[in-house]
Amino acid sequence: MDNFYGPGRNHLFVPGPVNIPEHVIRAMNRNNEDYRSPAIPALTKTLLEDIKQIFKTTTGTPFLIPTTGTGAWESALTNTLSPGDQIVSFLIGQFSLLWIDQQRRLNFNVDVIESEWGQGANLEVLASKLAADTVHTVKAICIVHNETATGVTNNLAAVRKILDHYRHPALILVDGVSSIYVALTGSQKALSLPTGIGIAYKLETYWPYTPSIHLLYGLRASLDLIFEEGLDNVIARHSRLAKATRLAVEAWGLKNCAQKEEWYSNSVTAVLVPPNLDSSEIVSRAWKRYNLSLGLGLNKVAGKKILFMFEESLILFALQNMGLLIGDGMDVENPILFTVFGCGGN
Amino acid sequence: MDNFYGPGRNHLFVPGPVNIPEHVIRAMNRNNEDYRSPAIPALTKTLLEDIKQIFKTTTGTPFLIPTTGTGAWESALTNTLSPGDQIVSFLIGQFSLLWIDQQRRLNFNVDVIESEWGQGANLEVLASKLAADTVHTVKAICIVHNETATGVTNNLAAVRKILDHYRHPALILVDGVSSIYVALTGSQKALSLPTGIGIAYKLETYWPYTPSIHLLYGLRASLDLIFEEGLDNVIARHSRLAKATRLAVEAWGLKNCAQKEEWYSNSVTAVLVPPNLDSSEIVSRAWKRYNLSLGLGLNKVAGKKILFMFEESLILFALQNMGLLIGDGMDVENPILFTVFGCGGN
Amino acid sequence: MDNFYGPGRNHLFVPGPVNIPEHVIRAMNRNNEDYRSPAIPALTKTLLEDIKQIFKTTTGTPFLIPTTGTGAWESALTNTLSPGDQIVSFLIGQFSLLWIDQQRRLNFNVDVIESEWGQGANLEVLASKLAADTVHTVKAICIVHNETATGVTNNLAAVRKILDHYRHPALILVDGVSSIYVALTGSQKALSLPTGIGIAYKLETYWPYTPSIHLLYGLRASLDLIFEEGLDNVIARHSRLAKATRLAVEAWGLKNCAQKEEWYSNSVTAVLVPPNLDSSEIVSRAWKRYNLSLGLGLNKVAGKKILFMFEESLILFALQNMGLLIGDGMDVENPILFTVFGCGGN
Amino acid sequence: MDNFYGPGRNHLFVPGPVNIPEHVIRAMNRNNEDYRSPAIPALTKTLLEDIKQIFKTTTGTPFLIPTTGTGAWESALTNTLSPGDQIVSFLIGQFSLLWIDQQRRLNFNVDVIESEWGQGANLEVLASKLAADTVHTVKAICIVHNETATGVTNNLAAVRKILDHYRHPALILVDGVSSIYVALTGSQKALSLPTGIGIAYKLETYWPYTPSIHLLYGLRASLDLIFEEGLDNVIARHSRLAKATRLAVEAWGLKNCAQKEEWYSNSVTAVLVPPNLDSSEIVSRAWKRYNLSLGLGLNKVAGKKILFMFEESLILFALQNMGLLIGDGMDVENPILFTVFGCGGN
Repeated sequence: MDNFYGPGRNHLFVPGPVNIPEHVIRAMNRNNEDYRSPAIPALTKTLLEDIKQIFKTTTGTPFLIPTTGTGAWESALTNTLSPGDQIVSFLIGQFSLLWIDQQRRLNFNVDVIESEWGQGANLEVLASKLAADTVHTVKAICIVHNETATGVTNNLAAVRKILDHYRHPALILVDGVSSIYVALTGSQKALSLPTGIGIAYKLETYWPYTPSIHLLYGLRASLDLIFEEGLDNVIARHSRLAKATRLAVEAWGLKNCAQKEEWYSNSVTAVLVPPNLDSSEIVSRAWKRYNLSLGLGLNKVAGKKILFMFEESLILFALQNMGLLIGDGMDVENPILFTVFGCGGN
Repeated sequence: MDNFYGPGRNHLFVPGPVNIPEHVIRAMNRNNEDYRSPAIPALTKTLLEDIKQIFKTTTGTPFLIPTTGTGAWESALTNTLSPGDQIVSFLIGQFSLLWIDQQRRLNFNVDVIESEWGQGANLEVLASKLAADTVHTVKAICIVHNETATGVTNNLAAVRKILDHYRHPALILVDGVSSIYVALTGSQKALSLPTGIGIAYKLETYWPYTPSIHLLYGLRASLDLIFEEGLDNVIARHSRLAKATRLAVEAWGLKNCAQKEEWYSNSVTAVLVPPNLDSSEIVSRAWKRYNLSLGLGLNKVAGKKILFMFEESLILFALQNMGLLIGDGMDVENPILFTVFGCGGN
Repeated sequence: MDNFYGPGRNHLFVPGPVNIPEHVIRAMNRNNEDYRSPAIPALTKTLLEDIKQIFKTTTGTPFLIPTTGTGAWESALTNTLSPGDQIVSFLIGQFSLLWIDQQRRLNFNVDVIESEWGQGANLEVLASKLAADTVHTVKAICIVHNETATGVTNNLAAVRKILDHYRHPALILVDGVSSIYVALTGSQKALSLPTGIGIAYKLETYWPYTPSIHLLYGLRASLDLIFEEGLDNVIARHSRLAKATRLAVEAWGLKNCAQKEEWYSNSVTAVLVPPNLDSSEIVSRAWKRYNLSLGLGLNKVAGKKILFMFEESLILFALQNMGLLIGDGMDVENPILFTVFGCGGN
Repeated sequence: MDNFYGPGRNHLFVPGPVNIPEHVIRAMNRNNEDYRSPAIPALTKTLLEDIKQIFKTTTGTPFLIPTTGTGAWESALTNTLSPGDQIVSFLIGQFSLLWIDQQRRLNFNVDVIESEWGQGANLEVLASKLAADTVHTVKAICIVHNETATGVTNNLAAVRKILDHYRHPALILVDGVSSIYVALTGSQKALSLPTGIGIAYKLETYWPYTPSIHLLYGLRASLDLIFEEGLDNVIARHSRLAKATRLAVEAWGLKNCAQKEEWYSNSVTAVLVPPNLDSSEIVSRAWKRYNLSLGLGLNKVAGKKILFMFEESLILFALQNMGLLIGDGMDVENPILFTVFGCGGN
């Protein structure tokens, strides 16, 4: 299969799968093991504990789910809501569009707030909707934290503030696939999840199904790398690299797809290709001549000829193909439910 | 984490994850790649074509799903049936029990035919039920091909014959997780799966979500190994090894859990532990003294003190953690739907 | 190339290359690195320090040489002796025979003390020779610590005692390839090795030639495994496994090649094949039927039809293909030069 | 150990170890094997046959030696010459300097022809020396084909022509470590190497010592990659990349160390650092800020502040740490001895 590639190493710079650190590749280079032995529960315990630090929570309950981001979307929706429930969803790019499509297929009653692609979520419209919803018909707000298709990041804290302002109990469900970030919401709903909690409880020692031993060891290695560097240092590094990328884009005389600084993403930079160039031709040449994988604009921004640049992601490899949900119960001071899911790719 | 194990290699002989051939481990030892590049669709195409040979079908449509066997169970049920549909399910061991639990949670109307653990599916009861169901209320027959918990294999061809005899249109859904075998059923239902077919169609070139590059390359390596040895030779080898295992069990003065030769499994041999021994103590000592992982009896047969022996499985590693469904459309001579799912572990 | 093997894993039980722990395989799974960067000297420093613990010395100077045991033989001879020097060499099996052949090709004046194969070194003859050598013509005693071909271990401490008794300054050069043990000798010679010491000095920070980055990381992983288990525990484990192997040989009604308990090796057990069996046929069948590699008797003991059993060796993989010399300078109480070389195979 | 590096991948651009293709890393990711089994001799046979194609010879006899380039230097000298023999050696940079040092330590009578560093071998002086040597005292010409320290390549064909012109029987010994090229010489000497030929003969089926199984499989993978791309295509690619590198150096306003186009190397480009910059500071910053390994000027050219740029080498990884000698016997038309040794690093 390798002969689909030219000689030498392939250079991966797409807004999709990230480059895997050699340390992580090595950790997954192994035979199978018995997941019912004493070793795997002990390993799992460290993972479930340590992953909380990535989400900066001490009380949240993380779930590791053997699926992709798309599967985690579904799992989050079906385990916290009921068919027919009304939800508000922001449409700001290709991935929020796909999620909304899934929400409709799962028979939720979706109220869409759309922005021009390249802009962030329109929070003013959300505020007016919540102000009007005094009977609390809206059960959840669905928002993509970092829209990969446009390199736009939404302000989750502002969403939380709006909900608090109107004392609205709706959940916030956040797609953190290309950001790993946290979403906050006040809700008793989280307390009514016997199945989920049951699973979480079992997870503390044993898996209720066959986990991927390899991804568990890979996740362990990823966490070790992050802790060794320091989570804040990792975030600062991505911030620095992302700024450097945006400055380079400007220096080349090109334009960022994200229209305002408040929406700049630190994990994906989408660049507008000049009108006289064909972005698919650029991607094709990069592949053939330089063994270099670049991302193309999708859907609406494909018409605007967008070429993607991608910084090394905060979302390290091992999380990919393993869905991740994290939920937090009631807390007097700051009632929140962390519902972050995703990872590394939809 | 490695220090949970004693020194030296761990010896894996459980009725769960199988030992991964070094060839397959090597194939998965790599960085990420762009799944939208020309290389991955080309690789995927060879996989979807070659995997049909494993299922000995030329017209079936295989689906590769990023999930475990448990997820594939759900996917098969929700994509071929509707909530409330009546289904007949055989209960012959722990895994059929778990599947029936899932069927009930998904709101199907489940009619259970139970056998003593250690025996196969009671097909006479099925025949009388189908004979009585002249209005075709039963939409599907759910059967575990190889019950891992007891080392019992069911006769799928006999199930097919009963349906044909009564010209009954119910689907046969088969859990082939520990056997990879084929299930046959006549049904127009398969033709009414626009989403599924749409996905299958797209799969011929591109993935609609982020696949695990590593599992794809691992699957490629697995298929190469099987084709190199010859599928029939692989099956013959497992048959030979399984027979040798059963003869060894007898020579040791022990008894097989599977009660009749017609139910003997060629991929799992479950052994009854003598009444004076504690099977969990055997497993514990094997772990501590010999770095050897053995399987314990589950649920009902735990009471009967069953110790598992496990031959190297026909189901090679790469299929694990990647659900697999294969469906065949209408065929005048032999109307069948292959609905095999599973792989390597639930 | 893999198709030279039958399906499934190959089982390695030869008196040659040992099975590599997965931890070590993983450590060597990497790209090249710049050996002149700050990282490799730092890694090398830990290796040179930690390897002393394996040799239980605090003052010895270890040398890592990119070669096999055969190359380390040559390096030890040519760096401590001069052409024409008289040396005493024990011939007790195939590997001592090969070393003597090399000693003669390198123009040393070799006085051979031969034993029947299956017996240890004849130390009485050595004692009488040293008693007679009052003018100290003999410059070195060459002895294979563990003769792989016969599973015989020599008593190095007894050799040291004889030299001390006659106050003889000859060096003891020990082939520890299949044992990793220490050799002792009193000699000022070791102090007159400017080149060697120069190299050793440089080695503390930088390599004078291109080292194998992979073997260095592998060695690091090997040492970590040994230290984690505890060196004495590792030795005790091999002692226990070797005893179990010898008891099993007896229980099978077969005979050990090593003729007396004092010569029993804890890393290689050589078994006499009954006269009515053809040992090469046994090895050939094991290979074809069971994908199992066994060792054959070599040279003289081939006539006696010897089949080898091999316990997992104390000599972990990473040392293989990397010669190892360790030299200790003058010490008032116990004047010794550790000159151990070899490892993992000649 | 990994924490000696910054986060992310290390970028290797040194005139030393080359980046290893993932295909080759994968091939070496394995347990040990019995080198006396039928598999390894079969593998070795394909290697010895296929490696001739890399050297473009059909009659040469390749030797694989478990050592570094430094060891292969010694092996070539001591197996083709006798102590005291007179040899002519070109001194044009750090590696030819080190080889000459070794030649002197091995007691050869070395006549050095020195060039300014940055220039190639002075062939006019060689011609006059050979013209004067009518009694054929000179037994060998030692020349580094590609001087890594200065990025200078020597014209070996011109050396061959001079020897032919004077009908001089001296051997040409070529260090091809950073080029893999062929050296030619007319000599009956090659025919008088019973040991060498004996080894070569044995090598066709069995190894006389323990080879590195891993490097053999790595070499197999390297050769497969080269043959897949086509050797001439590999050479053309390096020529193209090297030219692009030199053009880039000019475009940056910097100067090449190699002083004339006839000496330009296609595997190493050495760049003169402007007088106002400190090259060691450049290397240090590249390491700390960018996780990027660059090479420094050595010895004489260190004074001239040289910074190295290194193209992906023709010498793929698996050859490294495995010396390689290739010798060709008498041939009526073109009496030659290929004596190439080295690879991937001294």
